[in-house]
Amino acid sequence: MKLATLKTQRRDGQLLVVKKDLSRWTDASQVAPTLQAALDDWAAVEPKLRALAAALEAGTAPSEAYDATRLHSPLPRAYEWIDGSAYLNHVILVRKARKAEPPATLKTDPLVYQGGSGHLLAPTEDVTIRDEAWGCDFESEVCVVLGDVPRGTTAQTAAPHVRLVLLANDVSLRNLIPDELAKGFGFFQSKPATAFSPVACTPDELGAAWKDGRVHLRLQTKLNGELVGDTDAGPEMHFSFFDLVGHLAKTRSYTAGTILGSGTVSNEDRARGISCLAERRMIETIEQGAPKTPFLKDGDRLHIEMKGLDGHSLFGAIEQTVRVVR
Amino acid sequence: MKLATLKTQRRDGQLLVVKKDLSRWTDASQVAPTLQAALDDWAAVEPKLRALAAALEAGTAPSEAYDATRLHSPLPRAYEWIDGSAYLNHVILVRKARKAEPPATLKTDPLVYQGGSGHLLAPTEDVTIRDEAWGCDFESEVCVVLGDVPRGTTAQTAAPHVRLVLLANDVSLRNLIPDELAKGFGFFQSKPATAFSPVACTPDELGAAWKDGRVHLRLQTKLNGELVGDTDAGPEMHFSFFDLVGHLAKTRSYTAGTILGSGTVSNEDRARGISCLAERRMIETIEQGAPKTPFLKDGDRLHIEMKGLDGHSLFGAIEQTVRVVR
Repeated sequence: MKLATLKTQRRDGQLLVVKKDLSRWTDASQVAPTLQAALDDWAAVEPKLRALAAALEAGTAPSEAYDATRLHSPLPRAYEWIDGSAYLNHVILVRKARKAEPPATLKTDPLVYQGGSGHLLAPTEDVTIRDEAWGCDFESEVCVVLGDVPRGTTAQTAAPHVRLVLLANDVSLRNLIPDELAKGFGFFQSKPATAFSPVACTPDELGAAWKDGRVHLRLQTKLNGELVGDTDAGPEMHFSFFDLVGHLAKTRSYTAGTILGSGTVSNEDRARGISCLAERRMIETIEQGAPKTPFLKDGDRLHIEMKGLDGHSLFGAIEQTVRVVR
Repeated sequence: MKLATLKTQRRDGQLLVVKKDLSRWTDASQVAPTLQAALDDWAAVEPKLRALAAALEAGTAPSEAYDATRLHSPLPRAYEWIDGSAYLNHVILVRKARKAEPPATLKTDPLVYQGGSGHLLAPTEDVTIRDEAWGCDFESEVCVVLGDVPRGTTAQTAAPHVRLVLLANDVSLRNLIPDELAKGFGFFQSKPATAFSPVACTPDELGAAWKDGRVHLRLQTKLNGELVGDTDAGPEMHFSFFDLVGHLAKTRSYTAGTILGSGTVSNEDRARGISCLAERRMIETIEQGAPKTPFLKDGDRLHIEMKGLDGHSLFGAIEQTVRVVR
């Protein structure tokens, strides 16, 4: 089942069920007004949404043509947005870039940070930055939306709590990060609003590609039309989403609708390209002594998408233009 | 105007208007079903809530006796919970305690961290911890609830965005903090669910005590009935709530209902006592060579309250018992 949120005058938009081939959608607001409302009452709502999805596939539900520009983030605001950094190759490269050591517990203790979740970007919304000198970067990621997660949930018991899978562009302001992290309290100003894919899918939509709490598919990132990354989101995700949930739930519980990100998808094989510019800049530094690729500039265009085992887009594309606004 | 949230079967409870003397409340759900709904549409809702509050004071609205045990956190879940650390005396003492230096920018660049906001504790809910060895501590704080805050809001333009004032107990697991901060991504497991006062007040309820984005009143903390802190929340708040909003809004905007905390209220004058045990333990270390006060134990009782200029409780009391649960 594929779900999306129509932009309306209301803050949380209106729930839609989307056809598997992303050609059409149907209004699902008679089942649940918003995606958050559906997640709040998932056991009762899910069967009704699945029935509506079946009717949409069969052509027996009223529908409209899919138009990504009319879609908000599946959750226009979320109660929590927690982002891991589960691809160790990314951790090692970006720490090198800011001359910091990877943590000693790199392979045993997941890195996660609490992100801002009250204002999330629509999939085709501009990435607006106030100062190009802040070093704006994209980070192409895979995410899950969780149901209620009780404290004490472990990696072994996490699977039933994963409701949906989607993509994110975790925008980062690289040049603000070193001073911010030096203060010891983690990211804040260096992480502006995150953008999400137009569509969120139940894990079964991924078929065999959803395995062991990982998405075993390629994540494509294009910058100004050029394919810069075709990274495999599967085997190199050192901590699976289930591992991350186990880490999260050690000391607290989570309400339905919590979004959990993988961190920048990153592969050791450099032929796979990059899911953020910081990695390319670090590789340039290693190979050529200095970074050559600039961070994002006004007018730069991003395209982040993932295709399923059948070769079709699973979540629609995040398509954003960078704009400098004062 | 004083607002609260009745616990119901619904996740976000039911909005109440509370009498100024905290003796009675009235159902406000015909005006807005929940506090979040009220904040989402504040310009339209506020006058109606104020009219209801006037009727309650006049005895012309139906009302029930106030009972804090029936109240949830004013926001049982919030879109963001952001906590500053604006009392420099606290920063200096706790960093000493973990043998870390205060940041070089201590006086010019506010410390804030993004907390978990999907599960907040009711004012009389137990603080449950899974392991006493994690070093559970309270942190008595003052908070504000913000309306929509556009990106680029400055300290000078922040005042109109403050909707409500309330108190928090930002529970911390001290013994998990050093390893977590060493990883560089800030707090996560070391910050379990935060508790809030039963009542949230519009700033005008504080009268002259709400000045320059600070609450110029004493914050009382009792541990097992003993007054351990009677700290002044006013002059030593180095960064005001307005300063903190200016810091927050540099790179992103905020949705209505974002909660912003002051950090542990802390005074240089040791006669004022403490708003967290970590400070007392550090003072013991300085004065006697080692900490003597243990962190919170099963059965410990906390009471956090603030009285207005008239000597009456402004927000009701946070009254929690610590319970070790496996």
